[in-house]
Amino acid sequence: MPYVNIKITDEAVTAEQKKQLIEGATQLLVDVLNKNPATTVVVIDEVNTDNWGVGGEVITERRKQGK
Amino acid sequence: MPYVNIKITDEAVTAEQKKQLIEGATQLLVDVLNKNPATTVVVIDEVNTDNWGVGGEVITERRKQGK
Amino acid sequence: MPYVNIKITDEAVTAEQKKQLIEGATQLLVDVLNKNPATTVVVIDEVNTDNWGVGGEVITERRKQGK
Amino acid sequence: MPYVNIKITDEAVTAEQKKQLIEGATQLLVDVLNKNPATTVVVIDEVNTDNWGVGGEVITERRKQGK
Amino acid sequence: MPYVNIKITDEAVTAEQKKQLIEGATQLLVDVLNKNPATTVVVIDEVNTDNWGVGGEVITERRKQGK
Amino acid sequence: MPYVNIKITDEAVTAEQKKQLIEGATQLLVDVLNKNPATTVVVIDEVNTDNWGVGGEVITERRKQGK
Repeated sequence: MPYVNIKITDEAVTAEQKKQLIEGATQLLVDVLNKNPATTVVVIDEVNTDNWGVGGEVITERRKQGK
Repeated sequence: MPYVNIKITDEAVTAEQKKQLIEGATQLLVDVLNKNPATTVVVIDEVNTDNWGVGGEVITERRKQGK
Repeated sequence: MPYVNIKITDEAVTAEQKKQLIEGATQLLVDVLNKNPATTVVVIDEVNTDNWGVGGEVITERRKQGK
Repeated sequence: MPYVNIKITDEAVTAEQKKQLIEGATQLLVDVLNKNPATTVVVIDEVNTDNWGVGGEVITERRKQGK
Repeated sequence: MPYVNIKITDEAVTAEQKKQLIEGATQLLVDVLNKNPATTVVVIDEVNTDNWGVGGEVITERRKQGK
Repeated sequence: MPYVNIKITDEAVTAEQKKQLIEGATQLLVDVLNKNPATTVVVIDEVNTDNWGVGGEVITERRKQGK
């Protein structure tokens, strides 16, 4: 029954990587809490780097600075 | 005042269907809890089938299998 | 597969009312989008009125004013 | 460490405005709770006006009515 | 219409501080995007330090280390 | 920079299990996307079984039926 939401920046994430995130998060809930994978839901949100900030700085700017 | 967030896969949902979801969710809060519809907010997130997993499987793959 | 999150204030919502919200939201997705109820998830968050604001006012204050 | 999620309609919000939202929300947490800005995360979701409802009405419709 | 969700750890945040967060976040949306404060919603989630991690470490542990 | 939100039912999850979820989710983002763990945030929400539904049924009821 768990629900996992993963928010990441939309920087060329491949379908294969998304598959691995979904499999990995589902397995984590099985391993740690013995949850039923059949009803475990994982949703990945890809967010534009203009729309994400850390430390008061937009990620787009941080990327330009090599952060 | 309630806030309702509906996450669904982005599989050709029409503007009319979104309208029905917004009306229906707002009415549900009126019917069950007598909430003021004027300040009830409904937000629908449409998620790519590559970004949604159930049972450790990506929805894109499940669709190919007719699930 | 839909995921519905309902956020409401924690003002004496009964288990029966929560049941009705869960049933109603699940049915709404069946009616409008023909979604499979078996994998539809509904999560209700009850939020303290000190932690919710509308119009820049805390709900606790609005309640005192009869809003 | 705070996490702030701002959901707005996708009505021509500029990169400069997003920057101001990220800076302002980060500063708010510093000012009110003395939080460390370095680990404060702000994520802005822009939502299509077809996917957002208030008062049981879709925002797209409200905009046509000048609301 | 904006919706702002602020997640912070539940470390003795006062009602006054929550009020300031709600007022400040609502004002930020007015200042930057000229949004109508009457329909702006702010929800504050207070999360136990056992339930929050940064850098793979639980906040409860980081606090013991003076972080 | 990733943000991971894990929602589970509040059924006697221990601090040690929460620690494993936080470590595991952080490591998953490192392994799959090479993300910097220092700014990866994980938040666990524990939800009462009265407030969670699957298949239109409240989890509290499902547990009584041995599901």
